[in-house]
Amino acid sequence: MSVKIPRGTQDILPGQSEKWQYIEAIAKDVCRRYHYKEIRTPIFEHTELFKRGVGDTTDIVQKEMYTFEDRGERSLTLRPEGTAAVVRSFVENKMFGHPDQPVKMFYTGPMFRYERPQSGRYRQFVQFGVEAIGSEDPAIDAEVIALVMDIYKSAGLKKLNLVINSLGDAESRNAHREALIAHFEPRIMEFCSDCQTRLAQNPLRILDCKKDRDHELMATAPSILDYLNEESKAYFSKVTGYLDALNISYTIDPKLVRGLDYYNHTAFEVMSEAEGFGAITTLCGGGRYNGLVKDLGGPDSPGIGFAFSIERFIAAMEAERIEWQVDKGLDCYIVALGEEAKDRSVALVHQLRTAGLSADRDYQDRKMKAQLKASDRQNARFTAILGEDELAENRITVKDMAEGSQENVTLQELANYVKTKLEAN
Amino acid sequence: MSVKIPRGTQDILPGQSEKWQYIEAIAKDVCRRYHYKEIRTPIFEHTELFKRGVGDTTDIVQKEMYTFEDRGERSLTLRPEGTAAVVRSFVENKMFGHPDQPVKMFYTGPMFRYERPQSGRYRQFVQFGVEAIGSEDPAIDAEVIALVMDIYKSAGLKKLNLVINSLGDAESRNAHREALIAHFEPRIMEFCSDCQTRLAQNPLRILDCKKDRDHELMATAPSILDYLNEESKAYFSKVTGYLDALNISYTIDPKLVRGLDYYNHTAFEVMSEAEGFGAITTLCGGGRYNGLVKDLGGPDSPGIGFAFSIERFIAAMEAERIEWQVDKGLDCYIVALGEEAKDRSVALVHQLRTAGLSADRDYQDRKMKAQLKASDRQNARFTAILGEDELAENRITVKDMAEGSQENVTLQELANYVKTKLEAN
Repeated sequence: MSVKIPRGTQDILPGQSEKWQYIEAIAKDVCRRYHYKEIRTPIFEHTELFKRGVGDTTDIVQKEMYTFEDRGERSLTLRPEGTAAVVRSFVENKMFGHPDQPVKMFYTGPMFRYERPQSGRYRQFVQFGVEAIGSEDPAIDAEVIALVMDIYKSAGLKKLNLVINSLGDAESRNAHREALIAHFEPRIMEFCSDCQTRLAQNPLRILDCKKDRDHELMATAPSILDYLNEESKAYFSKVTGYLDALNISYTIDPKLVRGLDYYNHTAFEVMSEAEGFGAITTLCGGGRYNGLVKDLGGPDSPGIGFAFSIERFIAAMEAERIEWQVDKGLDCYIVALGEEAKDRSVALVHQLRTAGLSADRDYQDRKMKAQLKASDRQNARFTAILGEDELAENRITVKDMAEGSQENVTLQELANYVKTKLEAN
Repeated sequence: MSVKIPRGTQDILPGQSEKWQYIEAIAKDVCRRYHYKEIRTPIFEHTELFKRGVGDTTDIVQKEMYTFEDRGERSLTLRPEGTAAVVRSFVENKMFGHPDQPVKMFYTGPMFRYERPQSGRYRQFVQFGVEAIGSEDPAIDAEVIALVMDIYKSAGLKKLNLVINSLGDAESRNAHREALIAHFEPRIMEFCSDCQTRLAQNPLRILDCKKDRDHELMATAPSILDYLNEESKAYFSKVTGYLDALNISYTIDPKLVRGLDYYNHTAFEVMSEAEGFGAITTLCGGGRYNGLVKDLGGPDSPGIGFAFSIERFIAAMEAERIEWQVDKGLDCYIVALGEEAKDRSVALVHQLRTAGLSADRDYQDRKMKAQLKASDRQNARFTAILGEDELAENRITVKDMAEGSQENVTLQELANYVKTKLEAN
């Protein structure tokens, strides 16, 4: 009996993993250009961190966390998202004391949510995210948005819609909150039980409810944009002004609220508009969280960030039918015929690899024809054939599979010959 | 009150994370050359997998696993090592049916062992490993060893000792096992309780015991090399012959046994010989595991692999005082003076980034002197200064911090100017 993979998780196999590598490489290069540096926090944190940092009332904390006790009876939780831990690290490592603020960081790695597995949704998924902590300059909001749009653009995605909104500062949010309560309270019994709880705890999240989305009160709910005070309006207009200056187009959607409790001012999402992408079109979510650092025990330091799932990024690439610029195949495959040639090819393939080339050979004692097929399957640019005759003369026959030509070179020359030919292309 | 990082784990911060990136990049490039491709398995697996794949009698399974139940009452365990999951995936995805064997894979990512935290040892650490499954060709044993030595060499490590041994096939191991029992049994009560259990379960592991290492019977214990049958001897001599052909030096140590149950034939370790590296000098462990695929429900498919901890790799780099080839600093830092210049620099810094350059600016409304200091701290190659006078003329002053020279260019030219100067170097 074999043991199976845990439900809701997936293996990313050779031939597929190149897609994750490709997107991560692009994202990291964009981060290099924008001067964001990598931070790696642990896979698990004290459960308390997510209760405080993500919010006790969220679905994530209430229903979806992998929580367990370690052998020292600490309650630990596999991270369901990245922001809380980065902020925890910012506070614990006193990064608020760095002379240059904001501290600009990115992270990438697995996140965990115990959800019902469904097509394209996994209990373990890879998130890439960015946090800029320590500045309330609206130029940073624009920079963070520009950064994620640059990642998508660099990968070739075109059918995107950037949606932004402002949730305002605390005063604006409170005014809006009261208006929402006044709006929903008289008919709250027509809403689901979750929304009834939300009315008192966080009425903004009623707007996010999937069950009640078609209730007539939803369409007429008061818009946050009508409740922004002067400072919040001025802040938002600075952000949109910078986006205009960077030629980044966007849609303002006053209904855009984020599922997590700690956002204020700028909130944004990137949606895919590719045909056939499916019902959930959100690729990326982000926003400003000026209260979070203080909530987690640090000074009153403002932050902003975003995160996207690499799995959904890949789905968007495939919905737009973008060709993957990956897997160029082998530089050289060695076909060896006979025991002596086979033995000799151990050092030959090593010679190629030491010269920086990707190289491989047969390990199955196959006949010439099967080895040539393997070379083909592995998409080798050059096939080098070592038979008894060649070996006796210390030479090898090299076929250029792209050009169809072939030449006979000495064994010592092989690596240099292949390298020179490749560089000439 | 702030929440702290879980005991025994660490944050890898900007300024340090570059070391992990550097080693991973080297390891991945060597894998490209050797034609090993990435596999990513989940962070957790069914607990049963590790009981079977790592071995019920090992310290890892008995004392060090992070085991928990998920909301569906499955017993899951954070992976303590990589091989069991890669083999599980090999079986589950029927990779034994691929036309080209062995299937050559690498993985990198966090592993988890609940050990007593101590200097340089963490409960979460990053492992890089390689598995070649589906071939018993001794050339693969040599290839896998060459691969890891190539990774160390590419990073610049020199003070290494490759130690190898053969544990033989099943027949040889059984003969050796009986000799070990005969050797230890008469005086087993002088050994620790763990060793007393090991005598019946797996006497080979007595040789690995840290408590009893100085017992006089240890030095006189029968050597596996004296119990290898003809096939096992021939296999081992093929492996060492290939290593000789590749000019890879090694030490044969018949006392080298691996802590995991599933190894046979070739076993190896790479040790650091750098001064002051500390008591535990093992950097990498690996070996052949011909029984494991079958044990985990697959066909009788042989495998070999190794794994090393990136944290110990970094420690070895630092013990040998090898300079890190990382963090080249910014290409250009923009110093902006006055509200208008500051606003304008949002688009300017974007222009540089869009041209592929790494660029940053001030977000703290600092005076010129403080901005110049920031540019210096961030190791910018060029500092571009935008004051009111320059702005009025649509120009900017660019200082080459390496050469000490400066020039005045138009705002439109900036990115091209910096790029051209950088490429000329």
